[in-house]
Amino acid sequence: MKVGLIQHSNSEDTNENLSYTLDQIDTLAQQGVQLIVLQELHGSLYFCQTESQHHFDLAESLDGNTASALAASAKKNNVVIVGSIFEKRGNGIYHNTAIVLESDGTLAGHYRKMHIPDDPGYYEKYYFTPGDTGFTPIKTSIGTLGVLVCWDQWFPESARLMALAGADILIFPTAIGWDLRDNEEEKQRQLDAWITIQRSHSIANNLPLISVNRVGHENDPSKQTDGIEFWGNSFACDARGKVITSCSNNNHENAIIEIDMTESEQQRLVWPYFRDRRIDAYNNITKRSID
Amino acid sequence: MKVGLIQHSNSEDTNENLSYTLDQIDTLAQQGVQLIVLQELHGSLYFCQTESQHHFDLAESLDGNTASALAASAKKNNVVIVGSIFEKRGNGIYHNTAIVLESDGTLAGHYRKMHIPDDPGYYEKYYFTPGDTGFTPIKTSIGTLGVLVCWDQWFPESARLMALAGADILIFPTAIGWDLRDNEEEKQRQLDAWITIQRSHSIANNLPLISVNRVGHENDPSKQTDGIEFWGNSFACDARGKVITSCSNNNHENAIIEIDMTESEQQRLVWPYFRDRRIDAYNNITKRSID
Repeated sequence: MKVGLIQHSNSEDTNENLSYTLDQIDTLAQQGVQLIVLQELHGSLYFCQTESQHHFDLAESLDGNTASALAASAKKNNVVIVGSIFEKRGNGIYHNTAIVLESDGTLAGHYRKMHIPDDPGYYEKYYFTPGDTGFTPIKTSIGTLGVLVCWDQWFPESARLMALAGADILIFPTAIGWDLRDNEEEKQRQLDAWITIQRSHSIANNLPLISVNRVGHENDPSKQTDGIEFWGNSFACDARGKVITSCSNNNHENAIIEIDMTESEQQRLVWPYFRDRRIDAYNNITKRSID
Repeated sequence: MKVGLIQHSNSEDTNENLSYTLDQIDTLAQQGVQLIVLQELHGSLYFCQTESQHHFDLAESLDGNTASALAASAKKNNVVIVGSIFEKRGNGIYHNTAIVLESDGTLAGHYRKMHIPDDPGYYEKYYFTPGDTGFTPIKTSIGTLGVLVCWDQWFPESARLMALAGADILIFPTAIGWDLRDNEEEKQRQLDAWITIQRSHSIANNLPLISVNRVGHENDPSKQTDGIEFWGNSFACDARGKVITSCSNNNHENAIIEIDMTESEQQRLVWPYFRDRRIDAYNNITKRSID
């Protein structure tokens, strides 16, 4: 399967962001990709750097402007698209939602981010109600997509549940970056941890994985920090956790990846973890702490 | 905390293996270590390369020869020791068991390998009944040890359950190696996957980790394969998944590691995964497949 990913920086102008994205989709589609993955909240700046009520104006419904434009593009280009929106589900209920557009322009499904972070510069708990979709992969014409979002990356449970429910591939739209006050060693450690934890999901579940992150510096409107330097490094790995494509940490970049969708089944015979899981002994995973 | 690990090859002579191990424990203890970790089944060759009834003669009880010798050594040297035995629990019930000896010579606890592999060259399901200890860490004078064994490495559930139950550190005695018929790229891929999955447990659970593997070539008595080239590479990483010590792939080697046992709590404040786990949505982890 030929997959395209679009890594870019964003501006305050949401029309400009959308228009850039649609142009890149056209370009990738002309190169024959069947699936295109976009980064988290690709329509706007990463507004969660501060808690400001006016940012809720950015939110859209599942059939709003962004979803409609992506649906039209999916149909026009005959590709499946994984997008990401700030979803307004109803008054006072907002989510960080991944949407999957089928190549016929219909909404194949959506996933509402289940794990919501909150730390200085990433005030997501203010904006996003934790998802209630569960870890349910989305069926499409090109395979069953285990779409998760950013902070979900750090929870092995997310990837495992997607795999158990039949995902053929794991997909992470994400928005993560460096605090410029950290030194180079600490920055590299964070980036390396981020790559490692995602590769581990691929290894533990024998599934290919695609992760798409934004790049560029975005200021902190509150001026309490120096803002976030989104670290790019969008990448893909095969069903054995081997990195097969990796983007830069500072450039707009499209990548095209050839994913072997038959490798997962083969790998599950070579290293048969799913045969040996001790499901009789995992009950306590649902506890906060085993006291 | 100062930790020592002993990576070595084994011979058919079990007395020689034990005597080597006891000598190395003495040496490490003189260098001031508080905890010593041994490799999986350090008392014998890796007999699981074939299914042969006579190998059951190697099995010992929890207070057998190996456990008693390690207990005496732990007391003499005032160190905690993590060992590994082929346990005879009763007629027809055998386990692959990690034992933890307290520095006063008592048995602090044991862990019976929960996930049992079985593939050509690693016929463990013939020898080892799957453990029924659950994923219960073992309390000692120097901390609560999340001891797991080899194949458990590939299951994120193992490490998570140990962490939830209060483990201060993850410890893996292990025995894994290369098939000489694989090419260099494949060998490196396997080694890299093995390191990556373990580092991911450290990252996901904000815990330091120690993994001790054997080295050396052991023949396949059935001559169906070229035997196993155990790949060594015993290593330790800190509570952020950063490798702090790494051994060679072909030498007897002791390593001494300084582990900062305060880092875990700090790291859980910086990247607070345990705050955000969606325990309301993990029920299906106990299913074989979500059909």
